[in-house]
Amino acid sequence: MAYHVPALQNLIDKFASLPGIGRKSAQRIAFHVLNLPDDAIKSFSDAILEAHEKIHCCKICQTLTDSEICSICAQNDRDKSIICVVESPQDVMAFERTKEYNGTYHVLHGLISPIDGVTPDQLKIKELLVRVTENDIEEVIMATNPTVEGEATAMYISKLLKPFGVKVSRLAYGIPVGGSLEYADEVTLMRALEGRNILE
Amino acid sequence: MAYHVPALQNLIDKFASLPGIGRKSAQRIAFHVLNLPDDAIKSFSDAILEAHEKIHCCKICQTLTDSEICSICAQNDRDKSIICVVESPQDVMAFERTKEYNGTYHVLHGLISPIDGVTPDQLKIKELLVRVTENDIEEVIMATNPTVEGEATAMYISKLLKPFGVKVSRLAYGIPVGGSLEYADEVTLMRALEGRNILE
Repeated sequence: MAYHVPALQNLIDKFASLPGIGRKSAQRIAFHVLNLPDDAIKSFSDAILEAHEKIHCCKICQTLTDSEICSICAQNDRDKSIICVVESPQDVMAFERTKEYNGTYHVLHGLISPIDGVTPDQLKIKELLVRVTENDIEEVIMATNPTVEGEATAMYISKLLKPFGVKVSRLAYGIPVGGSLEYADEVTLMRALEGRNILE
Repeated sequence: MAYHVPALQNLIDKFASLPGIGRKSAQRIAFHVLNLPDDAIKSFSDAILEAHEKIHCCKICQTLTDSEICSICAQNDRDKSIICVVESPQDVMAFERTKEYNGTYHVLHGLISPIDGVTPDQLKIKELLVRVTENDIEEVIMATNPTVEGEATAMYISKLLKPFGVKVSRLAYGIPVGGSLEYADEVTLMRALEGRNILE
């Protein structure tokens, strides 16, 4: 292309490499960023560096935090006897948004997936076992996604936990709230039927 | 929210402030960026700072460049007697992608828009007039968008250019290639009819 500005092209390429951003969006964002005032540019660039520098895993639950122990594990009014096992910190955020769950979490940072070369020892499973043995845990809720990998990981961990005599549960399957029976797939419908509740 | 990591929240906010990126995408991108290796983070942050620092307007055509004169104005085989007037550097990129246009450009960096408080003196119109008076220009193609502001700006500039005796043209209106007559709006269809060409 005759019109080539290396610094601009580099910026567009960087944005295009982010998930969910195509070439056109990347170009639009790059031009937007170019037009930002100096201090906004500086603080944008700093936010990236700072986040990468400060954020690490919580010593207890392995979710992302900027202190030694995350804000959830540090709360005294949380029920420490319940652990909700999730794939990623994003899932922690999703549960926290419900404002209903009052237990703690454990972030695996992935799911067992032989096809992607992810083996159990690459996940934070060891840390979960340590937590279960060293603390008085009543229940572990397996809250991995209802995918093949999520199911396999939940099964694997529940088998590991069995010898410790801890209660292991799994999130309910069913029709999503606001969803339509007509468009639900067969497996979801079957699971919804299996998991039906008695109305009283 | 109980789960709050300021550095992470700051990063998410920064991405959410970009055009076309909502909260969910911003969160996804922030986590992606967190997981990048150290050198990728550094080069991402540098790309933003560098682009902002190095890129400025071409002395001649006002498009963005990192040298004094942009790569298009610097090319000797370009037809310097034709100027295509566009709103933004993105439009230059769009024309360059066609690989058909061999003239030069002039970037206005905006359109006249009283409702947004953009007056003619905030655009690079003065620079265009200087170019037309000081050089041997044959034709000026008004290639602003076919919006109210684009039309008004094209009309305004063409009136300014009239005394100089330079030919001023406007991009053709019509059905977009691959488009469907059925879904074309009335104005476009009318313009397409008005601008019809004789088949020979």
